[in-house]
This record gives sequence, structure tokens and C-alpha cells, in this order.
Amino acid sequence: MTAVSREPYDVAALVDVAVRVFLDRGYDRASMGDVARAAGLGKSSLYHHVAGKEELLEHALRRALDGLFASLEEPASTQGPPSARLGVVIRRTVEIMCERPAEVALLLRVRGNTEIERWAMQRRREFDRVVTALVEEAIAAGELRNDLHPALVTRLVFGMSNSVVEWYRPHGRTRPEQIVEAVTAIVFDGLRATERGERR
Amino acid sequence: MTAVSREPYDVAALVDVAVRVFLDRGYDRASMGDVARAAGLGKSSLYHHVAGKEELLEHALRRALDGLFASLEEPASTQGPPSARLGVVIRRTVEIMCERPAEVALLLRVRGNTEIERWAMQRRREFDRVVTALVEEAIAAGELRNDLHPALVTRLVFGMSNSVVEWYRPHGRTRPEQIVEAVTAIVFDGLRATERGERR
Repeated sequence: MTAVSREPYDVAALVDVAVRVFLDRGYDRASMGDVARAAGLGKSSLYHHVAGKEELLEHALRRALDGLFASLEEPASTQGPPSARLGVVIRRTVEIMCERPAEVALLLRVRGNTEIERWAMQRRREFDRVVTALVEEAIAAGELRNDLHPALVTRLVFGMSNSVVEWYRPHGRTRPEQIVEAVTAIVFDGLRATERGERR
Repeated sequence: MTAVSREPYDVAALVDVAVRVFLDRGYDRASMGDVARAAGLGKSSLYHHVAGKEELLEHALRRALDGLFASLEEPASTQGPPSARLGVVIRRTVEIMCERPAEVALLLRVRGNTEIERWAMQRRREFDRVVTALVEEAIAAGELRNDLHPALVTRLVFGMSNSVVEWYRPHGRTRPEQIVEAVTAIVFDGLRATERGERR
């Protein structure tokens, strides 16, 4: 194992392959042999680059989780009225689904059988808690309706945006901006036609 | 194989077991041996009740699909203004998620590797088409906003309601009526607080 064989480029390409293999076969059943075959490498060459299956999973899940948590720290999601901040987080989340559909799909299927999976589930729960707190803040500020349970609202909103990874295809007919617009429109204003002029 | 051993009760109980096994192991990998073990039966006894794995899957998927399609034929979803009919379909869909979360989860994971799976995917697409047509009708009637693509709206709305099967637990803290109310509220009116009196 040399420093050269651990160049970031190599690992990133192997993580791309591993994500596909983990989604196809399921993480539990996928082996380092499967990843090596899919990458066109010998198994021992693969071990020159990564210590094992868990390391590949961790890299893959970090791609999704880092994006989600970064969305919480952008200036637009930390300053201003809470409902506008919530809008930014929802927008960024949908964008991440479209940028990294495979990694997010993997994150959503994690079931907690290994330490890395439990860590990822813990991070997902943290993310949900932060967003639920933002929903509560927006309700308290009178910006969002107060007749629905904040944790339930958060689950449903992210259920909707997460569902995008099931059908979104890069270079398909539906562009990420259209999805962002539709999710945001439904979440904040709903589908009902109104006489108000505020509909975009 | 006798008529007695094919009593409906027996098969229904075996389908319950098979659904759990298929969700745990994945349909492709689950064997009739796995189902027999989980049911506490010998494999040959299991074959007295059902012809094979595909038959168990078909029974399971029909539970979900029959419920979904029945929702389209209720008087409340065939008569009246299109947006009200859409509301009824959404409501019944969420209720089916809560009545049959395991069967719906199985339906959502079907990937089309066998004839039964392809049939189920075909039925899902039919359901989506009928609902998309209902969304189009409601837009044409001026009841729903006209700035979003009907097929995208349908995907997002059912993405939200389908997500319920991922976390809903019968006898858990969240009751089906709360979920129905929250989904319907978000879909039609959104979360934004308004000064109008029409918020329930």
C-alpha cells in the first residue's frame, strides 16, 4: 500500500463503482470481490486503495450527508425569517437528491447492521431534528400554519423530496429546477388555485 | 394437495409471513424454504397451500393494488369536483399505507425481475396515469394551480404519501387520521400561514 495508490481520484472513482454495486446487490450481500469485479480490478488491487467495504460505504454516505448538513450552514439557511431558511434547506435538499441520487438512495436504505450504518442513521436523525426545530420556529413566528405537528410535517416534506431519488435521472426530461420549484410550491402554498396574486 | 389445505384462511396467514420474509431478505433472495421456516411449516406442507414464491408475491401485491384501485372506484372519487375526488383518492391512499404498510413497502420495492413484478409495475403506472388525469382535470376546471406539471405533481404527492410506509407503525404515536389530515393540508393548501379563514 503506497501513498500514490491512495490518491483521492482513485478512491472517488472506486466509491462511484461501490455505490452502484451496493444498490444492485444490497450492502449486506455485496462483497469486496463484487466491487473489484465491477471496477475491473483484482481484489488485492482494491485493497491497496481502501481498507474494506465499510470504508467505501462511509465515503458514499458522507457524500450525501455532507451535502445535507452543508445546506444547514449556508448563510441563506442561518439568517432571515425561519420559513425562508426552511425554504433554502428544502431547495438544497432537492438539489442534493438530483446531484447524488445514488448516494442518497443508499443513505435511505441503510438499516443499521454495522457501525457505519448506525452512524449514518444517527446523522439522519440529527438532520431531521434540526429541520423540525426550524419548522417549530417558523410556526412560532406565525409564518407557518400551527395546526400540524412539526415532526410529522418534517417527515412528510422530506418523504416527498426523498422520493425524487426513486425516479430522477440526470439528463432526463425533468430538470432539477422544475422539481425544486414544484416541491417548494406544494410545501408552502399547496396546489389549490387561489385568487391571490402571489402565485408565481 | 387437497381442497381443505387451500382454505383462504391458511393462505392469508402464509402471505402475512411471506411479506415479512420478502421484506427482510429481498424477494429475489428469499426462498420457499425461508417462508416455510418462518411459518413453522415443512417445505412440503407449504407447497400444499401455494404453488410457489410467485403466488405468495402475487397475493401480497394484490392486497396493496386492490386497495389502491378500489379507491378510484368509490362514489366519492368518481362524482363531484375533480379536486374533491383527488382529495378522496389521496386520503384513501394514505389509509391503505397505514392498513397495509408491509404490502405497500413490498410493492414499492418491486423491480421487474419476474412476470408478477412487471405486472405490478404496470398496475402502478396505470394508477399514476389515472391520478395524473385527475390532476389535469382539476387544473382544467380552475380548481388547482396551473403552473406545475401534472405528472410531476402526481409523483411528488404520492412520493409524500408513499413515504409513510417507511416509518408508520400501527399502534404507534401517530394516528392514520393525523397523517391523512397533514398530507391533505400540505397538498392542497401548503404550510404557509394565511389570514384567510379557510384553514381548519
